[in-house]
Parts: sequence; structure tokens; C-alpha cells
Amino acid sequence: MARVSSLLYERGANILHADQHVDHQLGLFFMRVEWELNGEADGSANLEPDQAHGRAGFDLDSFKASFTPLAAELRMRWKLSSSAQRPRMALFCSQYLHCMADLLHRWRTGELHCEIPVIVSNHRDVENLAAFYNVPFEYVPMTAATRAEGEARQLELLQRYKVELVVLARYMQILSPAFIDSYPAAIINVHHSFLPAFTGARPYHAAHERGVKLIGATSHYVTEVLDDGPIIEQDVARISHRDQVEDLVERGRDLERMVLSRAVRWHLDRRILCYGNKTVVFD
Amino acid sequence: MARVSSLLYERGANILHADQHVDHQLGLFFMRVEWELNGEADGSANLEPDQAHGRAGFDLDSFKASFTPLAAELRMRWKLSSSAQRPRMALFCSQYLHCMADLLHRWRTGELHCEIPVIVSNHRDVENLAAFYNVPFEYVPMTAATRAEGEARQLELLQRYKVELVVLARYMQILSPAFIDSYPAAIINVHHSFLPAFTGARPYHAAHERGVKLIGATSHYVTEVLDDGPIIEQDVARISHRDQVEDLVERGRDLERMVLSRAVRWHLDRRILCYGNKTVVFD
Amino acid sequence: MARVSSLLYERGANILHADQHVDHQLGLFFMRVEWELNGEADGSANLEPDQAHGRAGFDLDSFKASFTPLAAELRMRWKLSSSAQRPRMALFCSQYLHCMADLLHRWRTGELHCEIPVIVSNHRDVENLAAFYNVPFEYVPMTAATRAEGEARQLELLQRYKVELVVLARYMQILSPAFIDSYPAAIINVHHSFLPAFTGARPYHAAHERGVKLIGATSHYVTEVLDDGPIIEQDVARISHRDQVEDLVERGRDLERMVLSRAVRWHLDRRILCYGNKTVVFD
Amino acid sequence: MARVSSLLYERGANILHADQHVDHQLGLFFMRVEWELNGEADGSANLEPDQAHGRAGFDLDSFKASFTPLAAELRMRWKLSSSAQRPRMALFCSQYLHCMADLLHRWRTGELHCEIPVIVSNHRDVENLAAFYNVPFEYVPMTAATRAEGEARQLELLQRYKVELVVLARYMQILSPAFIDSYPAAIINVHHSFLPAFTGARPYHAAHERGVKLIGATSHYVTEVLDDGPIIEQDVARISHRDQVEDLVERGRDLERMVLSRAVRWHLDRRILCYGNKTVVFD
Repeated sequence: MARVSSLLYERGANILHADQHVDHQLGLFFMRVEWELNGEADGSANLEPDQAHGRAGFDLDSFKASFTPLAAELRMRWKLSSSAQRPRMALFCSQYLHCMADLLHRWRTGELHCEIPVIVSNHRDVENLAAFYNVPFEYVPMTAATRAEGEARQLELLQRYKVELVVLARYMQILSPAFIDSYPAAIINVHHSFLPAFTGARPYHAAHERGVKLIGATSHYVTEVLDDGPIIEQDVARISHRDQVEDLVERGRDLERMVLSRAVRWHLDRRILCYGNKTVVFD
Repeated sequence: MARVSSLLYERGANILHADQHVDHQLGLFFMRVEWELNGEADGSANLEPDQAHGRAGFDLDSFKASFTPLAAELRMRWKLSSSAQRPRMALFCSQYLHCMADLLHRWRTGELHCEIPVIVSNHRDVENLAAFYNVPFEYVPMTAATRAEGEARQLELLQRYKVELVVLARYMQILSPAFIDSYPAAIINVHHSFLPAFTGARPYHAAHERGVKLIGATSHYVTEVLDDGPIIEQDVARISHRDQVEDLVERGRDLERMVLSRAVRWHLDRRILCYGNKTVVFD
Repeated sequence: MARVSSLLYERGANILHADQHVDHQLGLFFMRVEWELNGEADGSANLEPDQAHGRAGFDLDSFKASFTPLAAELRMRWKLSSSAQRPRMALFCSQYLHCMADLLHRWRTGELHCEIPVIVSNHRDVENLAAFYNVPFEYVPMTAATRAEGEARQLELLQRYKVELVVLARYMQILSPAFIDSYPAAIINVHHSFLPAFTGARPYHAAHERGVKLIGATSHYVTEVLDDGPIIEQDVARISHRDQVEDLVERGRDLERMVLSRAVRWHLDRRILCYGNKTVVFD
Repeated sequence: MARVSSLLYERGANILHADQHVDHQLGLFFMRVEWELNGEADGSANLEPDQAHGRAGFDLDSFKASFTPLAAELRMRWKLSSSAQRPRMALFCSQYLHCMADLLHRWRTGELHCEIPVIVSNHRDVENLAAFYNVPFEYVPMTAATRAEGEARQLELLQRYKVELVVLARYMQILSPAFIDSYPAAIINVHHSFLPAFTGARPYHAAHERGVKLIGATSHYVTEVLDDGPIIEQDVARISHRDQVEDLVERGRDLERMVLSRAVRWHLDRRILCYGNKTVVFD
């Protein structure tokens, strides 16, 4: 912490926000620093550090050059990024559109700092919505039989649109290990239960069957083990004996929207750090 | 509903609160009615219907006589009780006393409408607390080897103290099927996780290991399958990557206190109805 | 309760859901009953009683005829409605569209059982959204000087479109007493604070200034006294010292969406009963 | 941040936890650092940094000597404390004992890192509880007429018992400006409403009268303006039209316990920083 903040100080960086975390069990030290250049900031920049970076025109490459030896000496694993660079996010969905509609509206209103170059679906239901937000829509049919070609087509699209993050907004198909490997810690899914409870299909039916008093939703990074990836965010809602499965499905939609949009937001703001099978979400 | 409320009307009962529930899947109709006798109520009675019953001196037996044939005709399963009769509740615990201290304080302040004739533990830690609240304490050591005698001793105590409800306030021993059978839907336990996630031992360690963002606690009736009985109440608290297992244990204590005390409260007020493996908790 | 349920029983009504409430202070008894006709129900009908009514073709007028004398005898104030009749709801907004987009999406997905004949705004920002959902849009400019004509025009539109409920989805203009009187308990507003805290303008600024640890939002019926009408729903979100006013505004948008959509949903399902300056929201 | 962490590094301090905050509006930088000495830490120490400090026997005075000039150069306002020093906390109460019982139990179980040299009350209800926890009890009657002598007596007691923090656990008397001035930012109160709503007396009655759907509680530092001091923590609970004032009082007790115990905990762990009329609560 001393060495990094000293270097930033020498380089005239003005720290806007810094957060550290120590994992005593694994003996790991985590640090996230957000800064702007002195004199470049103004009121709005202070309130929107993300833009500030861009305007400050901070020379990433030259900083990298002086930071690299320090990082090597301290045996850091590190990443340096400019908030002026907006990640390119692809949205996948099937026939349920509530998460999709929510993410697109948040993007339109400026809540999500990213580009959305493409929407991919194995159904045509989302086509109108995509058109309304002027996002290219790609229809990729997917059946057990055609999974291989389907995923090949999807990967080809992701490459063509230079996608850096894939968000599964209630996309009901299971991804192959090969697909997942091509986007490590860069595929975010929302599962409609409070994981690890009710993994797999029809979690609302399982929750109703078990008679729980709260239902939940979980956003997580996708790994090869179904519903087992690093958890990013979770939330719950109170239900009662009066609620039928249909009511849980409806109540759950609001939870799914919330936990997925928060996860996407945090990932885009580079606030999530994955290690082991967990996430650190910096303040 | 028509027939029951009509009978109550004829008998001069003044309905204070009524609640119904229909399970359309099973085709079951549930109803709970709370009443007092006309003219017997006053302001405080309205606010404390429980006492009102007692004061009203409603003749349960004579009402039972006229209600029985109606119930038979409508093929009801029913229960009639006077809130003047305070259930006799036994508290079991091991070495963690936070739930015990919470329940005893609530009882002392009048929140819990019951008698507490005895506190049973396989440790002596609770002895002072029991003495402070003037509740007889019975020490019953329990080891794998001595379980049989231990439970025999416990059952003998429950019988002697005329116990109707057993509350496991962080009692860390597993009960035998025989013991459980002797108190059907009358043993309440608190499990320190959001069931059905993290059943069994060390749920906080498991939650930390999995990297969940919320921890929970669950109060439920005890059945032969561990942590699988009808759920009465659940609640959760937000945690972060900063929280170690020790922090979860501490945060969790507040959840355990809340969900257990609510379950006990509702059971004592005869607001819980068990069916299948679920509970109906009437408003 | 006895007399009403008996009459329903005689008339062959099958009670799907009933809820009562007694206000002991005012000595008032409240009751809501939802039913279908025997033999008309099937599985899906049980799960969607609202549609069931319609299909059951229950003869409201004939039932009214037999219910009226009973109601008179018991001095009831009552309302009888068929869930087959979908209320006609007008949406008002200004330049913030998050609540509008949320309500329209919920309506499209079938969550809101109503017609939306018209969207009214003093800005043109909502025009595209209205077009996307095929809802007629009416632009009614509004300034201090032109309020009188503006409201006259709005009322004329509401009449033409046969509007029964007006929802102010972040509509930033104050309504005149005359306008409010023309829709008693039928104008729902969302205020972006936890009422009664921070009434009036810029509540998020006031909340930040005061240093609260939770922000809230409140949906309520509009009365002549600003932000003082019967509260329908409230919710809160945790904030910290890190959150600037801009962050509160953003966090608050989710609260506003939730509390307004719930209030609208409950009103459309005839679950809200207004009395004094309070609401009863039936289960 | 660079200079401070560098100095700590040179002095062989091992940072356990650090947190910063920037108030861009006021142009203030806040920092809290928690450390132990290298080589002194072990597993348990890592999990309980507070004890670690003590064991590490860090020389506060010598560190102070080298830190003072740096702090002066950077124009800091700073405080240095050892977690081995347990603050001396006095508890004040009147006749309601739920917060008192909760704090004493948490103290007994080790949740609260402090000494409790004395309990002061204008009633005798708490006397038994104080005796059970072996805390000296001082009865100080208080009436409008005798306030002056009463407070003089209280201050004399606080001095004799070397009290550093005063916690008002539902103490129903208003303190004089003189009393408050003698403990700046060191008197914590719990108010039974979601401030700034329902300040003053009988907030539950006011909440019931207004028909809110959530009730709250607030812990805050006491200042001369009633219920207006810096807010430390707030929480809320959902209520319904069924809840009478008595129900709110009962539900509220749990909220009061939670928000007061959290505030006390954070203050004792030196995690709260007061500025202006707000608090920074460090993670």
C-alpha cells in the first residue's frame, strides 16, 4: 500500500477512492485504487471519476512502464484500466425479457458504463426490444442437436463484435466448457434462487415445495460446474403460505432484475475481483 | 366459513380476528378465528384479545358440544383453545446462550404468553441465567454413549413438568426419532443457515467457504429428517468479503434470536398450522 | 361476516380468498371477499381467480339485487366489481422515465391487470416509449401561467379516454384541488423519500444533508395536502457516507419503481381500501 | 495516504485493515488504519486484530513522536488509540430494559470491547439486572424540579467512574446543554423512529396515526438540538394495517436493540468519525 500510493503520488495522480482487503487465511492483500490527475478534476469530475479519467488523458502506457518493475518486485497480479474505455457487453436471452428490458433501460439512462454491440437469442421475442434500443439482434437457434454449430456461431459473433463481457439475462441454455473457457470471469449469469439452495431447473417450484419463507436470486460468474461459480450478488424477498408458484415467479422477477443489474454495474466499474471461487466487491 | 361464523354469531361471540387460506392444489380450506364474548370487551381487551378470552370466561366445553356436530358434518380437523391457558414451554440449550437469554427476557417482559416450567441443558453454563429468571434448571449430561438414558431422563422431566412445547435454543444434540415422535409439531429448533442451504454442522463455515453475500437463519419444527422439518420463519443479513467466519457467527446470532423468538411467539399464539411439510402462519 | 358468507354460500359462490380487519379504535369492520362460481373453476382458474371471474360470467346485477338489502340492514359501505373488468389507467410523467418504462413493461408482461388508454406528459421525452408500447401519447405543456388551461385539457383527455385511475410516474407538476377532487382516491403518486420525512422538493438532497443511513420511497394517494395522502407502500435501501446525492438519486430510482408498481398492482386488484388518511391493503 | 502508509511501513507496522473516504464537496480526506507489529501476529490475532494490538505491545508514545510532525505538515486532525485500551462506558436507562438487557448480554459474551463501570437510572427497575451482571448501580432520581442536582450527581458519578462514553439505553430524560457539552460526540442515544420522521415524544403513536408501512429506529450522537445529532445507524421493519400502537411498540423494541448495539459496537471499535452533523462509519 505504501509503495503503490507513493508511486501514484510521485506521478501526480490524485486518488479519488482506494479500498484494500486482506485475506488472512490465504495471506493475500487486495487493493483497488481509482485516481485522476491533479488539476484536471472539476466538480462533476469528482462526482463522476469514471469520466474524469478519460478527460484527464492519463498516459496509461507511461505509467505502466514505471509500475511494472514495482509490481514485479512486490509479486503483484495487477490490472490497469481507464474508465474512459467502455467495455463491450453482449446480452444473451431466451423468451423471458424482464432482465433484458431492465438492463437496456439502465444502459439508455446512463447507469451502465458500456457499449452493447449485440443481443443474441435463440428466440425472436427480444427482436422488437433490440430494435427500440438500436442494438443489432442476432438470432441463433439452439437445440441439443445443434449446440455445437450454435455455439460456434455465437463465438464468431462475439469475436466480430469485439465482445469483452457476456451477460446471460435469463438465457436458458447451458454453455459448453469450451465456450466458458473462452470468457474466463467474463460471463455473468442470474440464477433464480438463493444459491446454493435450489440449483438447477425450476427453483421456484422447488422453493414452493420446500415451503421456504423467503425466495432469492443470485448473480454469479459462470464456471463449468452449473450454478457453482463465484457469487457476485444475492437478494431475497419475503413470501407467505398464500403465494403459489406463479406468485413466486412474479415476485422473483424483481429480484432477478436487481441482482443481475448490480452485478453488471459493478463488473463494468471494475469493482469485482475474482479469486478462488469467491468475489471481492470493492466499495 | 359461512357455517362457522354463523354459529359463532348465534353463540354471541364477537370476532376479533379471522383469517382464511385456500390451498387450491390440495383442495384444502384453512380458517382461524379469534373472538371474545359481546359486552365483555373493553379498550384494553380489544388491544389484547388474548387476555380478553380469559376474562370473558367463555365456556369452551358448551361451545365444543355445539361445534362438534357441525365440524363432523363439514369434515373439519379442528382445535379449540382459550388464550387464558398459557402453554407450558421447556427450553433446551447447550453452551451458546444468546437465544436463551433473548427468550427469557421476552418472556419476562410479557412478549411470550406461556409458562416456562423448566430449562434443560447438557452444560452448566445456563444455570445462573435460569436462576436469575427463577426457572428450575435440570442438568442432563449427554454423550453418544449415554444418549438413551439421557433422553429417557429428559422425557421423564418433560412429563413431570407437564411440558407441551419444547424449544431448542441452540441445543447441539440430535434427538432420537422416539423423542421426536413424543412431541409431534411441538419441538421448535433454530438452524443457523438459510435452509435448505447448508444443512448439518458448521453452516457458517460452509457459507464462508461458498462465498455467499447473505447469511441466514431458520426456525422450524423438528422432524426425523435433520433440518428438514416445516419451516416457520427465516431471515437473512448482508455480509461482505471482509467478514471472516467469526464475523458470520456473530452476525448470525442476531438472526437466530429473531427467527427463533418469532417462531415461538407465533406458536404460543396458536397462529401456526402445520400440514404436509409446510406451515401456514396466520396473520 | 356470517351474513355475507352465508349469502354467498346460498348463491353458489365459491370463496377463493377472504380477508377481514377490525379497527377497534374506530369500531369498524372491514371485509374483502373474492369468489368464483362453483363448477366453473379449473386449475388455471384457481391460480388466476381474476380471469376466473370473467369466465364464470357471474351475474353482478342479480347478486347486487339480493345483496343490497342485506348491506343496508348491516349499514355497510360496499363495492362489487368483476375482475373481468380491467380498469382504465392513465400514466402521467415528466422527463424522468424509469417508473414509466417499468410500469409499461409490467403491463406488457401481464403483471398489471388494466388498460392503458393514454400517456400524458408536459415533455416529449416519453413519446418514443409510448409509441413502442402502442399507447396514445398526449403532449400537454404546463407552466405556472398555463396551469388552468393545461389541467382543463388533461381532464378533457381523461374523460375522452374514460380514465378511472391516474398514476403519476414521477410527474413533477403539482395538481390543483379541483383536479384532485375529480379523482378521489384514484390518483397514485410516488414520492422519492420515506414519508413523512423529507416532504416537498429535492428529498435526496435533504436526505444527504441530514446524513441518514437509509433512503426511501413512498407511494400514496394524492390529496390536497402535498405528500400527505394515504400511504400505500414504502421501501428503503441502505446507503453509506460514500454515497453522494447523485448516488442516492440512482439508488432511489429502484425504490421508486418498486413502491409505485406495487401500489398500482394492488389498486388494480381492488386490494386497497382507503379510510381516514390510511389504507388497508388486503392480503 | 502515501506518506502515512510509508511511515507505518518503516516502523514495521503490519496493516490489518485500512479504509479511506473523500468528501469531494468539502474537500476532506478521511483515513482509518488498523495495524499490528510484524511477526507478532498469529492466526487468532489475524482474526482478532483488537487483541493483537495489545499483545504486540506497540509503543504508542514513540510512534506518536514520529507521527506528530508528519500530521502537522499535512494539516491532519488525528487520533491514535490502542485496542488494548477498553473504553469505559456508562449505561443510562429509565423503566424500559430491553436495550439494557441486550447490551449487557452482548458485553458478557464479548461482543462489546469495553468496561462497564456503572449503570445509572432514575428508576430502580434495572437494579436486579445490574446485580446479575455485577455492574455497580446508581439510583439518581430525576424530576423537572431536581434536574440540576440530578445532573450534577450524574456528572460526579461519571467522573468518579472515569467514564468515556455514555449510552442512553431508552433513557427518557432530556439532557441539559451543559451535560451534553461535557461529553462531545460521546453520548449515544436511540430514538424509536426513523429520523428525521417523528422526532420528540410518542413516535410510535405518531407513526400509527400517519399510517406508515414501515417503522424505524435510529441511533445517533446527542447534540443540543433534540433528535438532531449525527446519525450512526438506522433500521426499519414492515408493519401492516393490522398493527396497533402496542404492536408497533413491541416490533420496535427489536429495532431499538439492533441499531443501538451496532452503534455502540462501532464506536467502541473506533470505527465512527464525526464531522459536520454526519458520521463516517468505516468498514
